[in-house]
Formats: sequence, C-alpha cells, structure tokens
Amino acid sequence: MVTLADRRADHIREVLHGREGQSLRIGRLNGALGTGMIKTVGPEGVTLRCSFAEAMPERPRADLLLAMPRPKAMKRLWAPLASLGVGRIILTNAQKVERYYFDSHVLEPAFYAEQLKEGLEQAMDTRMPEVSIHRQLKVLIEDELDTLAPDTFRIMADPSGSTRVTEALQENPHSRILLAVGPEGGWSEYERDLLAKRGFAAVGIGPRILRTDTACIALLAMVHDAARDARKR
Amino acid sequence: MVTLADRRADHIREVLHGREGQSLRIGRLNGALGTGMIKTVGPEGVTLRCSFAEAMPERPRADLLLAMPRPKAMKRLWAPLASLGVGRIILTNAQKVERYYFDSHVLEPAFYAEQLKEGLEQAMDTRMPEVSIHRQLKVLIEDELDTLAPDTFRIMADPSGSTRVTEALQENPHSRILLAVGPEGGWSEYERDLLAKRGFAAVGIGPRILRTDTACIALLAMVHDAARDARKR
Repeated sequence: MVTLADRRADHIREVLHGREGQSLRIGRLNGALGTGMIKTVGPEGVTLRCSFAEAMPERPRADLLLAMPRPKAMKRLWAPLASLGVGRIILTNAQKVERYYFDSHVLEPAFYAEQLKEGLEQAMDTRMPEVSIHRQLKVLIEDELDTLAPDTFRIMADPSGSTRVTEALQENPHSRILLAVGPEGGWSEYERDLLAKRGFAAVGIGPRILRTDTACIALLAMVHDAARDARKR
Repeated sequence: MVTLADRRADHIREVLHGREGQSLRIGRLNGALGTGMIKTVGPEGVTLRCSFAEAMPERPRADLLLAMPRPKAMKRLWAPLASLGVGRIILTNAQKVERYYFDSHVLEPAFYAEQLKEGLEQAMDTRMPEVSIHRQLKVLIEDELDTLAPDTFRIMADPSGSTRVTEALQENPHSRILLAVGPEGGWSEYERDLLAKRGFAAVGIGPRILRTDTACIALLAMVHDAARDARKR
C-alpha cells in the first residue's frame, strides 16, 4: 500500500477522475511496471494497493549526443526526449554553443530529473535516462565516447546529409544507436570531421532548417521507427 | 529597397551580426525567396536592397487534421508545424477535447499568424499554411473534408496502428497526404470509425504514448521523410 499526496494524487483525482476500486498502470522509478488498485481517494491523498511485474521495461535503443541548445529550448526538451525513449543523453559544448548556456538551472540534476520523470510517466516507462554534460567536444569524442556509448551505430544529423535515417539504419549491425544533433547554427567543419572520424555517418531529414528541439524530436522518433522496422525483418 | 525596424532588424543586428555589403536570404510572405544585400545597419533600422526569384517555394505536401490540444500545447506547436512544412492545418473538436480549449487566444488569427511566420522564417519557406477551426467533427469529416483537402492520401495516428508511416505511404498514389492526429486521450471508437470510413488508414509509431505536440512533430517529420523517399523512386 502506498499513499500519494503530491502531483500524482492531483493527477489521479483531477485528470483520471479516479474512484475506489479502479486500476491504474503504475511503475517504480528504475524498476518494474505494475498495477495500482485505488483503495481510497480523499483530499489528503490517494491510497493504492500496488503489485509489480518482475521485469522492468527494456532500455530504449537510442542514445543522444546533443550540442547544448539554448536553455529555453533545453528546458522544453527533457520531457519529450524521455517520452520518446533515450538511454543516455550526452550534452556537449560546440563552436556555436554559447558558454553561458552551461550556467543555466535547466542543467541542474534536480531540475531535469523532474522533467525526465514527467516524460517517462507519459510514455509508461520507468528507466531514467543517464545524463552527462561535457564542456570539451574533442575530449568527449576522442577519449570518453567509447566508454559512454560503447558499440553503438553512429549517425549525425546534418543538412548536407542525403541519406535518410531509415536507410542509414538498414545495415545496422549494432543493438544500440547513437544519434548526434548539432547546435542551432550547425556543426563546424572541424567538428563534422571529428565526428566522421569516429564513425558518425551523416543523415538528413530534408532541406528545411528546424529548431534544435523540433529536429531532436523528429530525429529520435525516426530512429526508433527505423529500429522497430529493422527488428521486424 | 526596404527598411526594417522590427524584430527582423533586431535579428539581423544581434543574431546575424549583419554588416554593410552582406547578403541575406529573404522571402516575401506567400511569395518568392530572394536575396537582401545590407545597405545600412543603424539603431533606427536596417536597410536592404532586395531581389527575388520568380518562383515561390513548393507547397508542403502534407496537411494536418488535428484534434485541438490543450491551449498551452497548441501555443508551442504553431511554429514547429510551419517549420516542418504543412499546407493546411485543420483543427477540430473531438470527444476528448475540452470545450474551453476553443476560447483560447492561441486560436486568434493575429496570434497564430505570428507564430506560423516564425516557423516559416526558420525553415526558409514563405507559404503561410491555411488554418481552419471546426467545432463538429462529424460535419467536418463527412461534409467538409473532401473540399478542404481533396484528393489526399489519408492516414491517422493511432496507438493500435501497427503499420509504419513509411509503409503506409509506400503505395501512395496521391500527391498530397492528410495526417490525422487525435486528442491526448485518443480518438473514441466512434471517431475512429468515422475516420476509417472516410479512408483514413491507421498508422503507429510504437508502443510509447506521447504528448500531442511531441507526436505531431514526430509524425509530420516522418510523413515528409517518407514522401521524400517515395519521390526518389
């Protein structure tokens, strides 16, 4: 039995209109999904009797390497990323990233953990994405990436890329995919070379320039869609 | 010659760091793209000498039929939709749409026109999407849709859909695609039947439940990606 008295209780009362005896899908953070049977609903809280399945949800197959966007965009992006599904979020500096972006409160673990949880709840997932923040792209790519995201199939979104995500992933022999998304102004030529040397293949989603947050959502959804397809065969 | 003194002048000064003699890509609303050569940059405004190509950009091949999301979500969605590319946005009521959503200022033309323009500028497009708002889904689907979006290949996003967007569009004999996205709580069974009878095929993007705005961005991007691919063949 568990008694909730926070926003989850509000959600059960006001959005789900929960009544005694009703069953809800629940999940334990970094644990299993299960069922919660409502025992009582009152102004002081909601009490559930919980039972959990044994297995926890599978880890999403995609990881994201993202040049830190404007804090306002990043703030809005945490929850959608978690809802689309991402195993690891690697935030990095790049030439066209402003330094002050890294001082933003949206990079504080207490802030983004709440946002990520919201996205997980939305998608009925329980696995909190791992997050790391890197101030030096070169060090990240050359020294740290193989440990952070080992044995991944690597693609980078680039306006010059004429290969579609689906095509790129068709021949993917790996179980995990690492998607790199550049800053609003794009990767510099040096950065693109750095990534290409470490195995990132350029993919494109057409001639239109998108805001980082829009591009990230579009690309991550495409990666999952393509991975789902590849698995069917 | 044209002198700008609004947020476009600010953008040229502060984001693009525009200097005399520099060329910028410009466009005329619902007209051609072109080039603007900076003549003067001053605190009172920016003067450009403009030249335009003859043709205007192609109309995006996708139209969107969207059950009105929460105003907060719709507010954020206008610009991304325009940047991804959409010919027409058809907003509709549905069983799980709250009536008060339609009273929001985010549905006022003066409000959304600004948001859409921002999205077009981002994507270097000039065609303003057409927008219409419908309070009765049945009337819309049965009586108005064939006029609003004639000769379109119709798909609806549904968690039950096991066909991928790419697969659904592979056999598409039409030049335009109409994508239907339901409310946060999904279409009702009645609504799903109504759409199915009018030719909407169900497509899915996997088991995860997404917020309407995230789903819309993901789906619209996939539709364009798939349409781009179909054209290549």
